Amino acid sequence: MNLLPAAITTAIDALSDLPGIGSRSAERLIFALLKNEGGLDQKIGQSLLDLKKNVRECAQCCHLAEEELCPICQSPTRSADSICVVESPMDVLAIERTHGFDGQYHVLHGVISPLDRVSADDLRIAELIDRVTKNPPTEIILALSGTTESEATAMQLSAQLHRNCDAKISRLARGIPSGGDLDYLDAGTLSRAMMDRREL
Amino acid sequence: MNLLPAAITTAIDALSDLPGIGSRSAERLIFALLKNEGGLDQKIGQSLLDLKKNVRECAQCCHLAEEELCPICQSPTRSADSICVVESPMDVLAIERTHGFDGQYHVLHGVISPLDRVSADDLRIAELIDRVTKNPPTEIILALSGTTESEATAMQLSAQLHRNCDAKISRLARGIPSGGDLDYLDAGTLSRAMMDRREL
Repeated sequence: MNLLPAAITTAIDALSDLPGIGSRSAERLIFALLKNEGGLDQKIGQSLLDLKKNVRECAQCCHLAEEELCPICQSPTRSADSICVVESPMDVLAIERTHGFDGQYHVLHGVISPLDRVSADDLRIAELIDRVTKNPPTEIILALSGTTESEATAMQLSAQLHRNCDAKISRLARGIPSGGDLDYLDAGTLSRAMMDRREL
Repeated sequence: MNLLPAAITTAIDALSDLPGIGSRSAERLIFALLKNEGGLDQKIGQSLLDLKKNVRECAQCCHLAEEELCPICQSPTRSADSICVVESPMDVLAIERTHGFDGQYHVLHGVISPLDRVSADDLRIAELIDRVTKNPPTEIILALSGTTESEATAMQLSAQLHRNCDAKISRLARGIPSGGDLDYLDAGTLSRAMMDRREL
């Protein structure tokens, strides 16, 4: 027996296709929308239909943009001397939240991962090489995450960049997180933090 | 500086209006949709726009339905002798999953909660009284949750039902959950379980 109207079942099924949303969470969200009288269902629905309209990749840094260049690449206050290479547009937001970097970005849109069938050609690596060859920066920061795939990508990328420009190439520091408890840290992080210790 | 195209910001803002979805979770979901190439954004978007189309309340039990009566009220195998009163359509699904009840339901669509400005008139209580007066069942099970508001609603409802019909009125048993550990139980549940102990 179909206990719910088809429109509701369809919406629950569609929502539970999202990563991290199981069928029970989807049910809860849809019932919240059914109860909502402020038109939130229409607002979210329409915003998703329009999500990819007017969205493209910045011609310089491959971050998501509305115009040919993203606001960061357009900004006269952002130095082109320093390029921070990140995996995804979300990482741009994360680094911008620190207010500690005034250079430009380059978004790879993934990392090399043979198991997921993502090769170097699927990423924006050619664009990065082309960019640093034409306008050599003084520093390239590889701000990739700490997974095995990310580290392998950083290694490969670093070798390729060294062949194509003279920029200083760095990666983010590894160590204990702020507020982190030594008890809970894995041995890998802790031994990295020990190796990279700073003199006071 | 607006770091993301307006369409993306709009969708993130809309999604984070959902209960239990913060701005960071909304960001993650929207970026997953942006990466998805199977048209999931369109599928979810359209399903939400259509969510409330063809959805109404069953004329008998107030559960969500497409036709005048919901499938359960239409079913000839479901006994009208027993009515299970629940707070929400989700609770109907939860009880149906147990496969242990073959009567009919009545959905209140909430509980009396003065703090949230929900009074008895906002619920489907009048419909329930009307229903049991016209077609008296032999048993009414109040399957409301364990919160203070739900218990108060059950008390008030039980008094009102007793005045209007001769049905046996019961509530769900209180006790330790299956697989539950006594250590982790609150004193209220434990003392209820002690009081309602069953002889073996």
